[in-house]
Order: sequence, then structure tokens, then C-alpha cells
Amino acid sequence: MKQMNIAIFPGSFDPVTKGHESIVLRALPMFDKIIVAIGENTAKKTCFSLQQRKDWLEKVFKQYDNVEIDSFDCLTVDYCKKVGASYILRGVRNMVDYQYEANIARINNELSHDIETVFLMTKPEEEIVSSSFIREMLAFGKNVDKYLPQEVRILKGLLNK
Amino acid sequence: MKQMNIAIFPGSFDPVTKGHESIVLRALPMFDKIIVAIGENTAKKTCFSLQQRKDWLEKVFKQYDNVEIDSFDCLTVDYCKKVGASYILRGVRNMVDYQYEANIARINNELSHDIETVFLMTKPEEEIVSSSFIREMLAFGKNVDKYLPQEVRILKGLLNK
Amino acid sequence: MKQMNIAIFPGSFDPVTKGHESIVLRALPMFDKIIVAIGENTAKKTCFSLQQRKDWLEKVFKQYDNVEIDSFDCLTVDYCKKVGASYILRGVRNMVDYQYEANIARINNELSHDIETVFLMTKPEEEIVSSSFIREMLAFGKNVDKYLPQEVRILKGLLNK
Amino acid sequence: MKQMNIAIFPGSFDPVTKGHESIVLRALPMFDKIIVAIGENTAKKTCFSLQQRKDWLEKVFKQYDNVEIDSFDCLTVDYCKKVGASYILRGVRNMVDYQYEANIARINNELSHDIETVFLMTKPEEEIVSSSFIREMLAFGKNVDKYLPQEVRILKGLLNK
Amino acid sequence: MKQMNIAIFPGSFDPVTKGHESIVLRALPMFDKIIVAIGENTAKKTCFSLQQRKDWLEKVFKQYDNVEIDSFDCLTVDYCKKVGASYILRGVRNMVDYQYEANIARINNELSHDIETVFLMTKPEEEIVSSSFIREMLAFGKNVDKYLPQEVRILKGLLNK
Amino acid sequence: MKQMNIAIFPGSFDPVTKGHESIVLRALPMFDKIIVAIGENTAKKTCFSLQQRKDWLEKVFKQYDNVEIDSFDCLTVDYCKKVGASYILRGVRNMVDYQYEANIARINNELSHDIETVFLMTKPEEEIVSSSFIREMLAFGKNVDKYLPQEVRILKGLLNK
Repeated sequence: MKQMNIAIFPGSFDPVTKGHESIVLRALPMFDKIIVAIGENTAKKTCFSLQQRKDWLEKVFKQYDNVEIDSFDCLTVDYCKKVGASYILRGVRNMVDYQYEANIARINNELSHDIETVFLMTKPEEEIVSSSFIREMLAFGKNVDKYLPQEVRILKGLLNK
Repeated sequence: MKQMNIAIFPGSFDPVTKGHESIVLRALPMFDKIIVAIGENTAKKTCFSLQQRKDWLEKVFKQYDNVEIDSFDCLTVDYCKKVGASYILRGVRNMVDYQYEANIARINNELSHDIETVFLMTKPEEEIVSSSFIREMLAFGKNVDKYLPQEVRILKGLLNK
Repeated sequence: MKQMNIAIFPGSFDPVTKGHESIVLRALPMFDKIIVAIGENTAKKTCFSLQQRKDWLEKVFKQYDNVEIDSFDCLTVDYCKKVGASYILRGVRNMVDYQYEANIARINNELSHDIETVFLMTKPEEEIVSSSFIREMLAFGKNVDKYLPQEVRILKGLLNK
Repeated sequence: MKQMNIAIFPGSFDPVTKGHESIVLRALPMFDKIIVAIGENTAKKTCFSLQQRKDWLEKVFKQYDNVEIDSFDCLTVDYCKKVGASYILRGVRNMVDYQYEANIARINNELSHDIETVFLMTKPEEEIVSSSFIREMLAFGKNVDKYLPQEVRILKGLLNK
Repeated sequence: MKQMNIAIFPGSFDPVTKGHESIVLRALPMFDKIIVAIGENTAKKTCFSLQQRKDWLEKVFKQYDNVEIDSFDCLTVDYCKKVGASYILRGVRNMVDYQYEANIARINNELSHDIETVFLMTKPEEEIVSSSFIREMLAFGKNVDKYLPQEVRILKGLLNK
Repeated sequence: MKQMNIAIFPGSFDPVTKGHESIVLRALPMFDKIIVAIGENTAKKTCFSLQQRKDWLEKVFKQYDNVEIDSFDCLTVDYCKKVGASYILRGVRNMVDYQYEANIARINNELSHDIETVFLMTKPEEEIVSSSFIREMLAFGKNVDKYLPQEVRILKGLLNK
């Protein structure tokens, strides 16, 4: 029997954006399953709670049977082994982004030679739509709905203090 | 019935290198079929004949049922449509490479919105192994066997004049 | 009396694209006059005749009194001095583009310390719309109308042989 | 009546340097007015007080009628609208700088489609003269006069603790 | 008598890696002496104590008579003058790294015109081996022996809290 | 007896510039000998004859006993072995330059593991001074004396046709 072909799409998703949604959906036909995996980094203060971020991801991808939502607090490659993933999926915006991602991909490949990183490009119109952009807009009280998947709406009072 | 998930891996393969072989084999689990497709560019003089380049590719991938060898002389996206491919597979070496590939990927995505380009990174030890490197070594009479797939050996007298 | 504030927008315009049009129009409020100046490079074979390229530019900008069309066959800075321009206007697409343009801007500033190069970014949706892209599409018999200013239509038989 | 053509030159100016001065003066002929606008970022601790930074800027540009000094604590594009500016002026040092600035420019253009970012290059001899360089020199007790506009002199005891 | 030709190799060495060792040994024939110089930055919390980092460096290079270990807490160029060094040695990994190093090298050359920075490239197989990578592996309880010079072994309990 | 420590500085030197001169002189203390080596590339048409380029180099460096002038028509690493050089010296202008040089350095290191490439940065004021810049200025009949070593003056009639 052929082995399942699994990719993880790791990130903070603080919050999930239309850019994240686009990468997962465009990559979906290449894998039997994509696990959208929230990296828990206790040292890094997030804007939204882990539970909130998971809830949003569940909503965004609930109609796709081969997308799972999870979180992890170990090395990315160790998480890959645990869930049987051979691919790490990443979106790339520009050259500087690429070099940053390439460094991490090299490290992951060194730590586990059978784990490949697969890059898709962000769409031109989604280049600016990063989670940090969303957070900055929120800090200035701006409406960010157009940059979020339609299942995600950010209500006042949700942000971590 | 689920649609077949096909990628093309376009290039000149003048000649095919270990780097090309590595990209195809690492990407293979993501697709039902990868078509290694020689772009025929009549304006660009090649070092080896189209037939020779095809023969080598056939040998390198003959044990993989889901790798096909082909050639095309139209726009890459038109070839994708003809063979039913939704993905274009490319290897990336470094930031400058990335920008070059990203420009082409943007064009292809603009010409056909449902064609995605998927990037894998070349292995550090294969970064130098380009076809143009091989050709320059050959021009200086060097042995290049270690940079070629084991099925490919370049005999004297093969080069186009 | 205040000196006129003039910029040149040099290029081959082989052919003029929507991207060129966009740069000029977005820069126009900054200058008393922008001279769109075709650099005549006898060593470089163009796809369209100088007269044709001038005609298109005239049409595209005819409604703007402070845009002039011209051509030149000397060093760019010498042309600037001849027409009294203190600024060279250029569009930038990405980092590699920037470095290329920056090298030329440095040279021009060294040759004439009072000539500045001003950069605007291409719009995301116009990033792919270069003249060379247009020419390649034409070579494959594709319709390129959507990438050209509405005043420009390329008829069969126009291309230089 | 023609609308006034206004640019803002936003920054921390902590402290203003010869590099800043050079960008404003070289850009001045392109605009009816340049507003040098100190972005107040309460989260970012500055080395010099807002009042001090304003005082220096006032001194540096006091002889130029069409340069104004101001500060703002909102989104840059909202400040542009408030003061009627259509252009954001920025200096660029190198490729990495460019990508950083381009990301911000894209965001600003997305937030307000009629606001353009205009880039000038720093002069080769001013490439190293950033505010952070000045601050580091000061931290080591070095004299930084040669990197500052002649109207600015930093006396001991001025730095925020 | 010919002046001694001295280079410093400045860094945090938190901890020293195989990459550092490789740069020093490959550069050694070019200099009469290389001083591996730990920059003491009281603002930056290190993972290992200054004494520990010095001890490791002493061990790694003890068989090389023309390598000295030292530390400094002043500007790099002032340290160069103090020890009579005319060259600063640095390893470069990739383009982004290069731009970062180039900025510092420009500053150092501006501060002291007779101090040159000399760049060697990291070996492809050592590209990922940075001190920060080592520290992150340690934080996840991983064995990092293969990335360290053979004289360096990190025992539990050594890390600063 | 200690082995001689030799570097080659390969290039076309078509013609030699102040930038070339600067790199060699700044690197000279690091080596027992630097061989300025003209790569003869019969496929590439040069502007000045091999003999002329050699004559200029001889003049520029005649007062430096440890600089030799030579030419070669083989692989760079083979030339290094022939003359006993362990280092290849190169100047770098910017990030794009660096990536180009890094690719070549990687190839040379792969072909001969004991040959290192050493990079120095061009001085800011020499960044524009490339041989191709000189040739373009000459093509427009400009005086280029200020960009050339004082021993080099280009007389009319010297250029290859």
C-alpha cells in the first residue's frame, strides 16, 4: 500500500490571513493531507490565544476533509516525524523572505534528510497580507475584514493584552 | 473520479544533471505524474541534440513509472494545458535564482490562473551542478561524471559543433 | 523666476506598456514637464521602428500637456543637460531590478552631480508587464492588448524582421 | 487652481543626520512642500526627546520656506490625508533596504491608492550615516559632528536614559 | 623590518562552532597572526559565560601558535588599533549576510581608513552551523556535537540562565 | 621552510581601472605574492589587445616587487595549481555581485578543495568604476582619466575594432 503523502503548514496564524488560506488551497492537490500546525512558542507573546487561532483555522478549512488543524511545541522536524509528514509547505513573498525560509529549510533538511520544504509564491495581491500587517492595522483600530478568510471576523475585546 | 495531479519539470537539460534528477525524485510523491519536458528553443543553440537529451532523460527515469519524458515548442502554460498539468516544478539555488524564477512564475500564473509553480531548493552539495557548469567543464576537457546521473556518460564526439 | 522642474523618463519603449504609462502618470504632479525619451541604441535591434514607438508614445500621452516625446543618441546625462532636466525617472519592480537601476543611477550622478534619479515602484498587477514580456507573447502569436495602453494596438506586420 | 503637491518625509530622526538632510534637499524641487514628519511611536524608546528632535529639524530646514516640521501618531497614510500629501519620500541605501521600504510602500498604496512612495538613493558617502550608527558612536563616546547637519550639535547630557 | 600583518576575527562565539573554526584555519596562511576576539556586549545576554567561551576558543586553537584569543569592549576599529590589526576577518553565508557584513565593513572603513574587512565564504555544509542554530538545538535538548569543533563539548548545566 | 603564500587576481582588465588597482594594493600585505592574471577568453571580444592590457598592468604595479603580471587560457583552478596559488582574490561591489562571485567561488572550491576565494569590498567611490563603464564612456568619446590608474592613459586609436 502506498504511504500517505502528508505536508505540514507551520506558522503562528496570529491571526490566519487570506494569504495563508490561499497557500493551503493551492497546495492541497499535491498532498493526501495538509496539517495546518500552530507552532507554540512560549517565548513569543501572541496577539490571539492558541484556542482562538485554532478555532479560526478549523472554521476556515472545515469543508476540506484533507486539511487538519493541530499545534506543536517541539522542533518542526520532530513534529513532522510524529505525524508522518515528509513535506513542509511555505509561502514566499520576495527575495528576502526566500533567503529567510531557505535558511530554515536547510536546517530542517540537515536535521532530517527525508523532509523537504516546498515553496509556493504568494499572489501579488496578497503580498502585503501578513499576520503582522493585520495586527498593526488592528492596533490602529482599522477594519481588516478584507484581508481575512470570510470565516474569520475579529471582534473587539479578542486581542491578548 | 479524482482528476490526475500532474506537474511538468521544464528545462533544456543540456545535459541533464544530478541536480535535475534530485529535484524530480524529491518532488515525485507530490504528483501522480511528472513530465520532464524539454523546451525546444530554436533560437538557442544547444550543446547536445534534442534526441540525445531525450535519450538520457529516458534512461535516468526509466525505473519510475510516473515520470514521462517529452518536449514542447510552445508557451509553457499552453503545454501545461495540452498535457493537463496544473503545476510547474522548479529548483532554486539562491536569492537571485529565486527572483528570476519568481518573475517567470508570475507571468505563467497571469497567463493561466490555475497553474501554480512549485519550488524545491537544490541540495547544498548540488548548488554548483548546473548544465552550464557541465558544459564549461567539458569545454576544458574535464571529466564530469560525478555531476551526472549514473545513467548518463558523455562520450567524446557527442557535442554539437 | 523659478526654474522649470523637468524629468526625463528614458527607455526603449519597444513597445510602450501599461507599466510605462502608469509610472509617468503617477510621477506627473512632481514635475513641470516629463520628457519620455527613447534611447536610440544602434547596436540593439528593436522589435518596432523608432517612428512607430514615437507614434505610440505621442498617442498615449497626447492629452497631457506637460508630457513630451523625444529620442536621443548620446549619454543620458548629456541629454538631460541638453533639455534642462534635473531628474531621471525610473520604475522598479523588485530587488534585482533595484540594484541594476541603482548602478546606473550612481554612474549618472557621478557624471553629473546635479542629476538625481527618482524611483517609483511598479504596481503589483503590472510587475510582469515589461516590453520583453510583450515581445515574447507576440512571438508566440498571443494577444497582448490587455497589457498595452488603450491607445496602442499591435497589428500584424508591424514587427521589424 | 492647481492642487498643492505635498510630500511627507516620515522618520524617527533620532537624531536627524546629513543623510536625511540630503534626501530632503535633493527632493525639494519636485514638491510644493515637504513635511518632515516625526512618527511618534510610544512603544519604541528613542534616544532623544520628541521636542529635541523637532528643534533640530526646525534649525536644519529653517531657511527653506517649503519645508515644514511636524509629528504624527497615526497610520502614515492617515497622516498623509490629514495634511493633504500625495507622496511619501524615502531614501534607499541598498537592496535589503529597498525590499524593506517596498513592503511598506505596498502596504501604504493598498491602504490608500492615491498615495505614492518616491525613492531617492543615498549618496555613496552617506550610506553609513544612519541614526542608529550615530547613536552607537555616541554610546562609545565618539564625536559625530561630521555626520550631522551643521545646525545640529549633540551636547553631553542630551540623551534619554 | 616588515610590520606584522594581523587580523582580528571578532564575534560572540556563543558558542564557537565548526564554521568559526573553518574560517580561521582557511584564513590563517594570509596573516602573521589572527586574534579571535570576543566582543563583550553587556546589553546582549549570552548563553555561555565569557570565561567559558574563552576557554573553548583556547582549546580549539591551542595547536596554532599564530592564533590568539582575546576579548574587547570597545569599538571594533579601536580594538584593531590597540592590537595593531589592519584586517577584520568575516565569514559570509549568503547575500543577506553579505549586505549586513558590508554595512559594518563600510562603517569600520569610514572610522579608520586603513582597516580592511576580508570575507571568506562559509562551506556549503557549514552554512546552517551558526551559534544561534546551536543554541536553539540546545534549547530543545538536542545533541549538537557534530556542529562543534572536537575540542568543544557542551555539558548540561553550562548554559546561562 | 614555510610555503609561499600566493594569490591570483584574475580578470579581463579591459582596461585596468583604479578599482582593480585598489583591490590589489589593499590585499597585498596578506600575500607573499599576488599574480594579476589576465584570463584569455578567445570567445569574448575585448576592447584592448592582450599585449596592451599586459603593458598597462606592468606599468601600474611595476614598483611592487610582489606583484606579477601574467595571462592564462585554462580553468582558473588549473592556473592556480600551475603557479602555486592557494587564494583567488576578488572585489565585490554589491549583493548581486556577491552572489555571482560566490557561485564561481563555490565551483572553484569544489574543483580544488584547497583553493579559497578571498573577497574585499570596492570602496564606495569606486563602485561605479568597472571596465565596462570605462568602455562605454570611451564609446561616447568621454575622457576617463580620473577612473584609471595614473600610469594608464588611453590614446585614440588604441581600441580594437
